[in-house]
Amino acid sequence: MHLLFFSKFLYFCISITSEQYLLLFNIDTCKNRTKIEEDMAKEVNNREENYSLWYNDLVTKADLAENSAVRGCMVIKPYGYAIWEKIQADLDRRFKETGHVNAYFPLFIPKSFLSREAEHVEGFAKECAVVTHHRLMANPNGAGVVVDPDARLEEELVVRPTSETIIWNTYKDWIKSYRDLPILCNQWANVVRWEMRTRLFLRTAEFLWQEGHTAHATKEEAIEETRKMVEVYASFAREVMALPVIVGRKTAGERFAGALDTLCIEAMMQDGKALQAGTSHFLGQNFAKAFDVKFATKEGGLEYVWATSWGVSTRLMGALIMAHSDNNGLILPPTLAPIQVVMVPIYKGEEELLQVTERMRTLKGALEAKGITVKIDDRDHLRSGFKFAEWELKGVPVRVAIGPRDMEQGTAELARRDTLTKELLPQTALAHRIPELLSDIQENIYKKAVAFREEHTYKIDSYEEFKERIEEGGFFLCHWDGTAETEEKIKNETKATIRTIPFEHDGETGVCMVTGKPSAQRVVFARAY
Amino acid sequence: MHLLFFSKFLYFCISITSEQYLLLFNIDTCKNRTKIEEDMAKEVNNREENYSLWYNDLVTKADLAENSAVRGCMVIKPYGYAIWEKIQADLDRRFKETGHVNAYFPLFIPKSFLSREAEHVEGFAKECAVVTHHRLMANPNGAGVVVDPDARLEEELVVRPTSETIIWNTYKDWIKSYRDLPILCNQWANVVRWEMRTRLFLRTAEFLWQEGHTAHATKEEAIEETRKMVEVYASFAREVMALPVIVGRKTAGERFAGALDTLCIEAMMQDGKALQAGTSHFLGQNFAKAFDVKFATKEGGLEYVWATSWGVSTRLMGALIMAHSDNNGLILPPTLAPIQVVMVPIYKGEEELLQVTERMRTLKGALEAKGITVKIDDRDHLRSGFKFAEWELKGVPVRVAIGPRDMEQGTAELARRDTLTKELLPQTALAHRIPELLSDIQENIYKKAVAFREEHTYKIDSYEEFKERIEEGGFFLCHWDGTAETEEKIKNETKATIRTIPFEHDGETGVCMVTGKPSAQRVVFARAY
Repeated sequence: MHLLFFSKFLYFCISITSEQYLLLFNIDTCKNRTKIEEDMAKEVNNREENYSLWYNDLVTKADLAENSAVRGCMVIKPYGYAIWEKIQADLDRRFKETGHVNAYFPLFIPKSFLSREAEHVEGFAKECAVVTHHRLMANPNGAGVVVDPDARLEEELVVRPTSETIIWNTYKDWIKSYRDLPILCNQWANVVRWEMRTRLFLRTAEFLWQEGHTAHATKEEAIEETRKMVEVYASFAREVMALPVIVGRKTAGERFAGALDTLCIEAMMQDGKALQAGTSHFLGQNFAKAFDVKFATKEGGLEYVWATSWGVSTRLMGALIMAHSDNNGLILPPTLAPIQVVMVPIYKGEEELLQVTERMRTLKGALEAKGITVKIDDRDHLRSGFKFAEWELKGVPVRVAIGPRDMEQGTAELARRDTLTKELLPQTALAHRIPELLSDIQENIYKKAVAFREEHTYKIDSYEEFKERIEEGGFFLCHWDGTAETEEKIKNETKATIRTIPFEHDGETGVCMVTGKPSAQRVVFARAY
Repeated sequence: MHLLFFSKFLYFCISITSEQYLLLFNIDTCKNRTKIEEDMAKEVNNREENYSLWYNDLVTKADLAENSAVRGCMVIKPYGYAIWEKIQADLDRRFKETGHVNAYFPLFIPKSFLSREAEHVEGFAKECAVVTHHRLMANPNGAGVVVDPDARLEEELVVRPTSETIIWNTYKDWIKSYRDLPILCNQWANVVRWEMRTRLFLRTAEFLWQEGHTAHATKEEAIEETRKMVEVYASFAREVMALPVIVGRKTAGERFAGALDTLCIEAMMQDGKALQAGTSHFLGQNFAKAFDVKFATKEGGLEYVWATSWGVSTRLMGALIMAHSDNNGLILPPTLAPIQVVMVPIYKGEEELLQVTERMRTLKGALEAKGITVKIDDRDHLRSGFKFAEWELKGVPVRVAIGPRDMEQGTAELARRDTLTKELLPQTALAHRIPELLSDIQENIYKKAVAFREEHTYKIDSYEEFKERIEEGGFFLCHWDGTAETEEKIKNETKATIRTIPFEHDGETGVCMVTGKPSAQRVVFARAY
């Protein structure tokens, strides 16, 4: 009895002193705890102390994704998938505006197809999920099922790690004449690469992506397409993800397996590491030759077709999380937030709750008419402090709180997630102020990320200094002699790679920081995800 | 020389006598033939003579899909995928309006998961693609790659044939309290069932679908969800696909493996066969028990969760094609047509082409402002007759043709695909007339399908008559004694199955046509896809 009393007393004290996190401590007295209550009871790891755990906490506690029972495969939870749907919708619109159409190609690739392009198979063979049988049978020696040995496939099938081979084998039948070109196809699909060390969104055995595969009559047109699509990715990253990216070219060593040229967008995360957020490949005639895809030219000749491929994946979710979030949780750009505004009623008793939520419904209607997504959190078994913390964790850009005093005075409290600042304003001003605020937040998140990148980007000319400072993280603009040997040496000695040879540069020539040989421009070195 | 002259003369003759199909015969004189020209050169098989070939011709020649290099797996081509995207978008909206959210679960299912629910494994084990290894290696005895024997998985993974098991294993961690319920998730995904006899869209080893998986606190709520979703499918089929469907219940023998009750929508194809177009399953507590998913009730108890699952697939594409099309090609309902209006300029010489297409662009703008999708077919290497035939084959609902005389008189020729009728009207009337026409076509296609089904639906009371007439195809409304034995006997003797026990019926009781035992209502017998 004493213990129970004490626990109730403690509960009471905490509820007074720490309204916001009250329920986090309310562990023993509460029956029927929901999943979110259990999750919130564990604190988010600190970004500055353990970046990696912080990242994992955000992904799992904000309900974006979790590991599944299958090694390396994730479950993308509804809140995370809603963000991915917004990413998809916006990218899909951009692809269609640039003349692309969607199609769907088989999940499976005959093993022999992979070998057709020598570098391609070299790049992917080591991480393939291989289907060898097409039937299970009751276990003759016990319970459960076993693979039926009589159902072995004549040729094994690989679960697509990327679709160049199966698609070019298909294009062979689609292309006869120059008039059949260009083919501008995209596919939204799942792919599998059997990675040994996986991390939610960043590196998973199965992931979702889009892969564009285009076929062209001329080399110039294919090169133009490669460039066009990396720019589509760059605009998308900046405008929608509020993510500043550097557009440039990969070195030969970092190219896609089978490409003649790989362009990329490269972003900086808050730990100073680089993340490759999208790639666009000029494949030359490699796949056309491997699958014998020729076309009749205008002039009556017969030539191999030119190819590109380009893709972004659910890895973008990782970039989004790591670029903007803080120790309170996610910070989502309003363009991608599944819920842009959350309204939390402050009340005592059912009658107040009804009054406040009724008012909120009117305000919600006015905002929805402007295309804004609003949620009223009227769950009556959770305290408002708990709700505040939960929506902060989930990165909802704007929070509106209205209590009994606000009802009297016609006011509302507006809190923005990015800066955690609050303002009090008349309820009548909300429908005007909130769209403005969302646009401010979008801009501010982007500017903050740009500023962060600028603060952590260094021009370095001494390899000694480079080796020391690379430990702190950041982008290092250095001169490099253009050889694979030097690139490899730097990688081995510092774990830093050339992330990109940026298209935009000041034209400053120099000498390689390692060998002293001439360099045409600075390139971006960093450690990377 | 003589031969060449003759061939040119013949070409000339044909071009006069058969403008529409000219290019079909223009085989030898034309260099640089495109893929579509090659395809159109082969005629579509006649629906009345060979329904099955007719279907296959439509799918491949209208550029919807084709077989891939992988046995049983199809390539969904851009035109076909555009229809699927419209199906997806509309269904997705309906799911969200009924409170569902999307998520994504792993492609792979540990073999042991399948065995957890006895009927479920029985239903799917025989057609599973099984992943046994995770790596390929260079062939030590020759060219190419082979499976690396050292990369054998500890437990084999099955490529999902459906996701109940992996999802319920996940839900176990999502559900603690009654407050975590209901969970209303849907997933858009690819699934694999190793079918031995495959047909494009109707039965393929890999197909695309959506699968809803919901979890509820009470049996009543789960049953209500099952019913709600089959009704969502029915409304979608009728309103969007212009497909009349019968809503009802499957017999125990036709249930989904692991379900306590399976509801379905059943449609009639133009050969009188039935096609199951969507199913919604009440799973009881079977999967909750198999994966030990319990929740704390309001009253403080601990109970197993109640489940439903429901799905439609790319099979709907097959239904769409077979329900409406004719010997000229597809007939698409305007709601799902990727191109709703095609404009074909009639011209001689470049100047006329420019004049006509300029006018068309203005008209196109006016239609697009009303949300109508318009394509101007200004390809200058194809004759208008060829274009007419191509767009008929592809099922574009409305065709607008404008020639030099129309330019003078301000008129346009409007042709509707469903009835193949034409009307001449002022160009100024197009923006008003076309939306009206599209809506007419949508309604007409639906009515035609309803009429066809009514004409081919028979009330039969004599089993002898049934056995004779089942050969002609159609739906047979018969009394059945409710036993699996009688159902099985009829199936074995006639290849007809009970497609559904319809919810809507006139309450007429009777006696089983086979055994003479009492029957509560007529059920629908048919041969089926």
